[in-house]
Amino acid sequence: MDRSRLEAFSDGVFAVAITLLALNLTVAGPGHGRLVHQLGAHWPSFVAYLISFFVIGIIWVNHHVLIKSIKVVDRMLLFLNLVLLLFVVLIPFTTGLVAQYLSSSLNGADTRVAMALYGAVFLGMSAGFGAIFEWTLHGERVYEPVPRERQWAARTRFVGGGGVYVLAIVVALVNAIAAFVIIGLIAVYYILENTPTSSGEPGTADSPGGDAR
Amino acid sequence: MDRSRLEAFSDGVFAVAITLLALNLTVAGPGHGRLVHQLGAHWPSFVAYLISFFVIGIIWVNHHVLIKSIKVVDRMLLFLNLVLLLFVVLIPFTTGLVAQYLSSSLNGADTRVAMALYGAVFLGMSAGFGAIFEWTLHGERVYEPVPRERQWAARTRFVGGGGVYVLAIVVALVNAIAAFVIIGLIAVYYILENTPTSSGEPGTADSPGGDAR
Amino acid sequence: MDRSRLEAFSDGVFAVAITLLALNLTVAGPGHGRLVHQLGAHWPSFVAYLISFFVIGIIWVNHHVLIKSIKVVDRMLLFLNLVLLLFVVLIPFTTGLVAQYLSSSLNGADTRVAMALYGAVFLGMSAGFGAIFEWTLHGERVYEPVPRERQWAARTRFVGGGGVYVLAIVVALVNAIAAFVIIGLIAVYYILENTPTSSGEPGTADSPGGDAR
Amino acid sequence: MDRSRLEAFSDGVFAVAITLLALNLTVAGPGHGRLVHQLGAHWPSFVAYLISFFVIGIIWVNHHVLIKSIKVVDRMLLFLNLVLLLFVVLIPFTTGLVAQYLSSSLNGADTRVAMALYGAVFLGMSAGFGAIFEWTLHGERVYEPVPRERQWAARTRFVGGGGVYVLAIVVALVNAIAAFVIIGLIAVYYILENTPTSSGEPGTADSPGGDAR
Repeated sequence: MDRSRLEAFSDGVFAVAITLLALNLTVAGPGHGRLVHQLGAHWPSFVAYLISFFVIGIIWVNHHVLIKSIKVVDRMLLFLNLVLLLFVVLIPFTTGLVAQYLSSSLNGADTRVAMALYGAVFLGMSAGFGAIFEWTLHGERVYEPVPRERQWAARTRFVGGGGVYVLAIVVALVNAIAAFVIIGLIAVYYILENTPTSSGEPGTADSPGGDAR
Repeated sequence: MDRSRLEAFSDGVFAVAITLLALNLTVAGPGHGRLVHQLGAHWPSFVAYLISFFVIGIIWVNHHVLIKSIKVVDRMLLFLNLVLLLFVVLIPFTTGLVAQYLSSSLNGADTRVAMALYGAVFLGMSAGFGAIFEWTLHGERVYEPVPRERQWAARTRFVGGGGVYVLAIVVALVNAIAAFVIIGLIAVYYILENTPTSSGEPGTADSPGGDAR
Repeated sequence: MDRSRLEAFSDGVFAVAITLLALNLTVAGPGHGRLVHQLGAHWPSFVAYLISFFVIGIIWVNHHVLIKSIKVVDRMLLFLNLVLLLFVVLIPFTTGLVAQYLSSSLNGADTRVAMALYGAVFLGMSAGFGAIFEWTLHGERVYEPVPRERQWAARTRFVGGGGVYVLAIVVALVNAIAAFVIIGLIAVYYILENTPTSSGEPGTADSPGGDAR
Repeated sequence: MDRSRLEAFSDGVFAVAITLLALNLTVAGPGHGRLVHQLGAHWPSFVAYLISFFVIGIIWVNHHVLIKSIKVVDRMLLFLNLVLLLFVVLIPFTTGLVAQYLSSSLNGADTRVAMALYGAVFLGMSAGFGAIFEWTLHGERVYEPVPRERQWAARTRFVGGGGVYVLAIVVALVNAIAAFVIIGLIAVYYILENTPTSSGEPGTADSPGGDAR
């Protein structure tokens, strides 16, 4: 079994999920107040769209890099990849949920639940990605195995990344907006971190931190 | 005609269908009771999402393996593949149907009909996959033809797998939840069965049991 | 410019369009009468789904065969391909329209208009495919040019196929169901015609009759 | 990191976005007046569909040509590509918005805002494409670097193209229909400009003017 269909199927799911995000962007339409006010009232939809778009985009980039390093595609990898995609597919749902409840109340009890779910799906995605990374560490599964001494560094980064989502979930139960900011900052961090070093070390698969990377 | 576009098109359909599953996940939103209660009342949506996601995922894996073994792509194969995809595309519809009716009544007459339809679409998908498998047995259509003595074993497994869906449909007409459990167990069975033996025999195309492999 | 991204993009559009067809399959849900009655009342949705699914499937097969024969991808081809896809993307809309109006009235004035539109989109798709075929006849654009004496046979078949859609549109304005039957028969004809001869002559690009093929 | 998954993912997003455009085409259905009148009242939906379809189609063609010239895929390119796709994914939303408000009022205040947003998303897409083009100018990133003396011509064309969208946005705030015409003419211009010269110079990556091209 070769990598190409794994990549094609995953790319398809990433592409559809990222495009479906925009289905959450709606306004009530003519007769429901000025359009600018409607759009303004829906600002959480646009912020959540932006965050989720880049989170999916980053995880796609990292998926690309990690899968490219893999030599052997077995059914366990396919299963772990499905678990990752299971959470990716949920992102448009939780993105819509958080936008809907934030538009209604900035820190109501339900808004906090919605925000915790939003973080939980990213945490699940992060864990799915981490599981694929762990899988690559054993046997002769990648072209250039990660040296043992770097494995713990990579794991630490991964657990660190996932840990920030855990933090975001806990914070969400107290203050939804604060959690929203944390989740947004995670995305900004990965964009900033990834971009400058990119030309320096393309194709490194040892750093699946946080949601993506 | 080469295999690559058959795979690309099928992967696209699988990817879109699996992602559209999440469109069934909705809540009424603010003003319709506590969010946790809304989510709790929609538990059938989440269970059905989980089952359908893995059923599509498994059939995709098995499709991958089976198509990879094929040497000649003729129009009959393209037609049989379309029949398989016809049922795959219906899965988001029946998944939504079963979730909607289960949320309304756990074993009402309509819930039982919805569950039977849910099983019937999986049975159709299973039959479509079986038809492609049968097609591979004749002529010089695969790189490594399945030996005649293993063909019946494979068919038996296939009919056995399809048979469980028939059982689920019959049970559904009596008890919707029991059928739901059976359909869920079929998915679990195929995940468990596939995963451990995976590295042992990648690429075997002789065992398209049940809905998938 | 190579063929692969033309194929990838087109396959993506075909795959999304064919999967979106199922979004038209909905029932009002619990509290709107027995499910079997609801499904029964929606029979046009299911028949229209079936027809449109196979029409898109057939045009995909033929697109595959025709594009595969092409040596040079220029911007005119890309434009003609976009015109073809413009109509493919409209199919879920007209499929939903015809299903909606047929469910309401079997031959009301609006049902006849909806059916004429349904045929018109297939005619547009057929014309787009024919335009690509015409494009392949000139210059050194394909690996094995269609001999001049066979070009007219191919064109005749093409005009014949498109002509049946014109007939269907005209009939639709008088009797919607009769037109529905004609459109369904065109799909059945292309499935039957294509399947048996498939292994005999894979890859022939000289017969883009009707909607597809 | 190779180009193929960048292309596959982008093609997926383009394909899904272009197909989702048709989800904006809806009529209220039976019981809401004659279908021809409903369709007539929705003419802005169809015009907006047509314009947005070709804008996405053109940007896809140009994306294809530009990416094909690239030798090195680094993370900055992936990020810029995500920015481009961020706007592409928004197109179905703004297309629906402009159709909805134009159907309600040809030049109401809200219609003008909707039209300005429609132009703004195309401007953002154009800027994203221009950023990728700028990226290709530095370092050894493309197979055949654009000569310095042609870079300014290309930039001028690009700024010119983007400038027309700026014009359209400004006009939109005064007269929505006039802006609609301008945006439509940009699409027509790029179709006409691209098509005839296509066979003459396939694969030129130095002219990403306006929204696409």
